[in-house]
Amino acid sequence: KNKGLQVLKANSGAHPPAHSAGHGHGGSHSSSGGSTLLGYIGIDTIIEQMRKKTMKTGFDFNIMVVGPSGLGKSTLVNTLFKSQVSRKSAGWARDEKIPKTVEIKSVSHVIEEGGVKMKLTIVDTPGFGDQINNDNCWEPISKYINEQFEKFLKEEVNITRKKRIPDTRVHCCLYFIPPTGHCLRQLDVEFMRRLSHSVNIIPVIAKSDTMTIEERQEFKQRVRKELENNGIEFYPQKEFDDDMEDKSDNDKIRETMPFAVVGSDKEHQVNGKRVLGRKTAWGIIEVENPNHCEFAQLRDFLIRSHLQDLKEVTHNIHYETYRAKRLNDNGGLHPISSNDTQESNL
Amino acid sequence: KNKGLQVLKANSGAHPPAHSAGHGHGGSHSSSGGSTLLGYIGIDTIIEQMRKKTMKTGFDFNIMVVGPSGLGKSTLVNTLFKSQVSRKSAGWARDEKIPKTVEIKSVSHVIEEGGVKMKLTIVDTPGFGDQINNDNCWEPISKYINEQFEKFLKEEVNITRKKRIPDTRVHCCLYFIPPTGHCLRQLDVEFMRRLSHSVNIIPVIAKSDTMTIEERQEFKQRVRKELENNGIEFYPQKEFDDDMEDKSDNDKIRETMPFAVVGSDKEHQVNGKRVLGRKTAWGIIEVENPNHCEFAQLRDFLIRSHLQDLKEVTHNIHYETYRAKRLNDNGGLHPISSNDTQESNL
Repeated sequence: KNKGLQVLKANSGAHPPAHSAGHGHGGSHSSSGGSTLLGYIGIDTIIEQMRKKTMKTGFDFNIMVVGPSGLGKSTLVNTLFKSQVSRKSAGWARDEKIPKTVEIKSVSHVIEEGGVKMKLTIVDTPGFGDQINNDNCWEPISKYINEQFEKFLKEEVNITRKKRIPDTRVHCCLYFIPPTGHCLRQLDVEFMRRLSHSVNIIPVIAKSDTMTIEERQEFKQRVRKELENNGIEFYPQKEFDDDMEDKSDNDKIRETMPFAVVGSDKEHQVNGKRVLGRKTAWGIIEVENPNHCEFAQLRDFLIRSHLQDLKEVTHNIHYETYRAKRLNDNGGLHPISSNDTQESNL
Repeated sequence: KNKGLQVLKANSGAHPPAHSAGHGHGGSHSSSGGSTLLGYIGIDTIIEQMRKKTMKTGFDFNIMVVGPSGLGKSTLVNTLFKSQVSRKSAGWARDEKIPKTVEIKSVSHVIEEGGVKMKLTIVDTPGFGDQINNDNCWEPISKYINEQFEKFLKEEVNITRKKRIPDTRVHCCLYFIPPTGHCLRQLDVEFMRRLSHSVNIIPVIAKSDTMTIEERQEFKQRVRKELENNGIEFYPQKEFDDDMEDKSDNDKIRETMPFAVVGSDKEHQVNGKRVLGRKTAWGIIEVENPNHCEFAQLRDFLIRSHLQDLKEVTHNIHYETYRAKRLNDNGGLHPISSNDTQESNL
């Protein structure tokens, strides 16, 4: 259908050749197969127009943390967002008892930076992996993830829709691997295998300050190998690389995952500068120093280069998969008019 | 539901006050009701991430031109996009006969500027207003607009959806008013009244080089008055202003609409510069010179400030209106699996 589409390109640099002025050599008239434009139009201003809209509306980002207690999940999230955003800091007591079953608790904050507002929701899963018998402990988590898809789907099929559907879907699941130095536990494998098709899983090695450089390298390699052997596709998934550039960027990231991280929300003085770190008798681990641990790599990846992509993969892949299954199973969802939203016909 | 959301803000400028370091005056600790962040996170990089995605995918923009023949519709569109993009320049003969009924003809080009690709489709409506009896001549146009909504809706309710639904919906309808200096013709009023709820109508006064400055001012004022008296809401519609800033910007634009324009795809030499213009015995009308006509204002408005908004109003308002009506009338559309797309069950 796009066959025969003519491509018109801006002439980089100088004024384009005038096609109405007669005598010329006919030299550099056509550029790379397409015609050139007779001056500046302003198509690239779309970027600035989109920026303005985003500054006004802001965006949602929802991150889930999963892993046994005591691995520093809350601290890591606080370190990522440079503030007390985790559930534990938001009113819950730090000496809270470990629940007897897996619970799902979420807390939201609006964080503004450079005029851009992000509504951040941290979904915590206390009790995961903390029981004597952890059979099916991924089920409440899987249920929560699907409930958010269902909520979005219901809004999407409504006859009267909101201009922007509130997005509570989990864009990213940080899975905390204990720094055992051995191999993945069966629970780790089960969780990631079962959930990797409904959420973007980013495995991290928690509290990695307990490992030497060699131990870290070796453990990371072993974890990658085990994930591969078990057919677990973590984020960024190879199959969703958009093009060669994506593939090459993401290959580099995949080769260094899972990131071995250390979190801290305490500041220390190092060479006259205040840095986030952990002070021990033998030195200060600066969490944002790439020579000390891989926190900065995780932060850059999660927030500064792949945040939008995490949202898009969630919407275009995980949500679409859920929706297609849901509609196929059900023989079609009927749109719900706003009056019917109380009673669920699903 | 957002009640109690804590707002965390970047500390503009220097390092934020450390909350772990004890003795201080407690001076500028809290900023505007929210807590401050313990350093830079990178939330604002979302803009750059979105820019990169847009550079890769490009975007669709579909513009329709309506008005009697001989008003320079094709030339104006060529002037807007600095190239031969109109139907007339794309293979059709300029001496093509006026059709006996309104026809809908579209032609597409990909235009690239600053690395951003726009797939531009110009939808022309030859024959509109050219008949002896122009009863219902808006109907083929209305039908075309709705067909594009229907196409989009069908894609949207499919069980297996495309990652990006091709957007053929008309984002903007340039309605050409003849520069009579009198009042709007009944056809103009009928067309705009009937179509203004399904498409963004931007009325322009065509070939305005036939008018003196006073005639132009007076005619524009009269047209605005008549549109208002007939309850016609052209784009940007007052009711869709998002906030006070939008309202104030758009009020200024609405007060100077409809723009009195002149088009030209011929270049002339003026003060050593090549400009697009029309040469007459008494001077050269430079179409992009704001002292000569309002072409530059139309171009800035249509392409450089409101293009994204035209797309969003089309999607959020006109398409949603069509969709809600369609679903209400039909008692619900059933999602179509890809096997069924051949037979229409609508």
